[in-house]
Amino acid sequence: MRIALLGGTGDIGEGLALRWAFDTNHEILIGSRDPGRAREKAAEYETELDSRGVECDVLGFGNEMAADRADVVVLAVPAYHAEDTVEAVRDRLDEDTILVSPGVGMKRDDDGFHYNRPSAGSVTELVADAAPEDVPVVGAFQNLSADRLANLDVELDLDTLVVGDDRDAKGTVTMLAERIEGLRALDAGPLSVAAEVEALTPLLINLALNNRGMHDVGVTFL
Amino acid sequence: MRIALLGGTGDIGEGLALRWAFDTNHEILIGSRDPGRAREKAAEYETELDSRGVECDVLGFGNEMAADRADVVVLAVPAYHAEDTVEAVRDRLDEDTILVSPGVGMKRDDDGFHYNRPSAGSVTELVADAAPEDVPVVGAFQNLSADRLANLDVELDLDTLVVGDDRDAKGTVTMLAERIEGLRALDAGPLSVAAEVEALTPLLINLALNNRGMHDVGVTFL
Repeated sequence: MRIALLGGTGDIGEGLALRWAFDTNHEILIGSRDPGRAREKAAEYETELDSRGVECDVLGFGNEMAADRADVVVLAVPAYHAEDTVEAVRDRLDEDTILVSPGVGMKRDDDGFHYNRPSAGSVTELVADAAPEDVPVVGAFQNLSADRLANLDVELDLDTLVVGDDRDAKGTVTMLAERIEGLRALDAGPLSVAAEVEALTPLLINLALNNRGMHDVGVTFL
Repeated sequence: MRIALLGGTGDIGEGLALRWAFDTNHEILIGSRDPGRAREKAAEYETELDSRGVECDVLGFGNEMAADRADVVVLAVPAYHAEDTVEAVRDRLDEDTILVSPGVGMKRDDDGFHYNRPSAGSVTELVADAAPEDVPVVGAFQNLSADRLANLDVELDLDTLVVGDDRDAKGTVTMLAERIEGLRALDAGPLSVAAEVEALTPLLINLALNNRGMHDVGVTFL
């Protein structure tokens, strides 16, 4: 399968790219608004993987080209760029492309981080509204620490939550998530309950701010 | 210490009463709008504890009397009764009483459970607004399954999150939470980030609805 990480040059995109390249044989495409930057980071990831004995091609493209070539397109961009990134690639998406939203809207004040709920209900629903109607949208990977994901020396031992209305697309994303070692994917329900999943991220950051040794805190459900 | 569980005749109140009576020597007071019902449930809890070799007095009172006698008052009532319960006992509270809010406002539709954010920002802040100004308010125990808590045969192995603006009160509630075996208390920040803590409860219920074997699911952060 071909997985494109739009905005794959930064934080969560890097983590997912490295983990999938390390743990699976899926083809990883790094997308960026700047194709040169995408190629540069893709080469960096290849070097990192090569140093761990994993030979694989990680390729860099402009976001449009990356989306065009992929079966699964992950919007690894800041939440406030989710909508315009979908607009930029919407002609490259169709019913056979799964669009994955890991984004969370947050605001910060002196007390810590707060969930900033978009008027669409959640970032995932905002993405679904912006995407062509026949493109299945799935929310996932919202609550993972980018640093922990990107550090291949660290065992994850974490859960990620999957939301969506398309059963098959959700199944595919669940399978892809669980191919990452130490990651378990749980079904959190349809798109309309995505806000509760996204709201967990500011909570995790608040825990990191207020408790010693929880810098890259994640969550498990049991 | 004397801990009053207002609304201690139902779900989360029962669980906290049994766990504290079982794991500590604190005095447990069960409060209810109906003092007879409180005495009846208190006797039931005593029988349950007695059958496990724990001899202790669990006493039942009207909510006002229970609040009057306690050092820590837990509002173990449904969220929509939190405000009027505080109103009913506010004359019995003072700066030496810690008021604890485990409540969460939720609404349900065909898609699952959603966080129903009160205009005060959260149930915890609603309680703080209703309480006399000098009474310290702490949010805690919002994300615990009542059934799992009430079943003393089950190891908890869970986290609970504590929010509040009063450092000492927060410390006391953290200590009381951690006296329950298998429960770890984490600092989630000040009162103003209580919404993110409360929003985790509908998420847990959605996970229970959508995943096999997660009936009484709880959470740990790591």
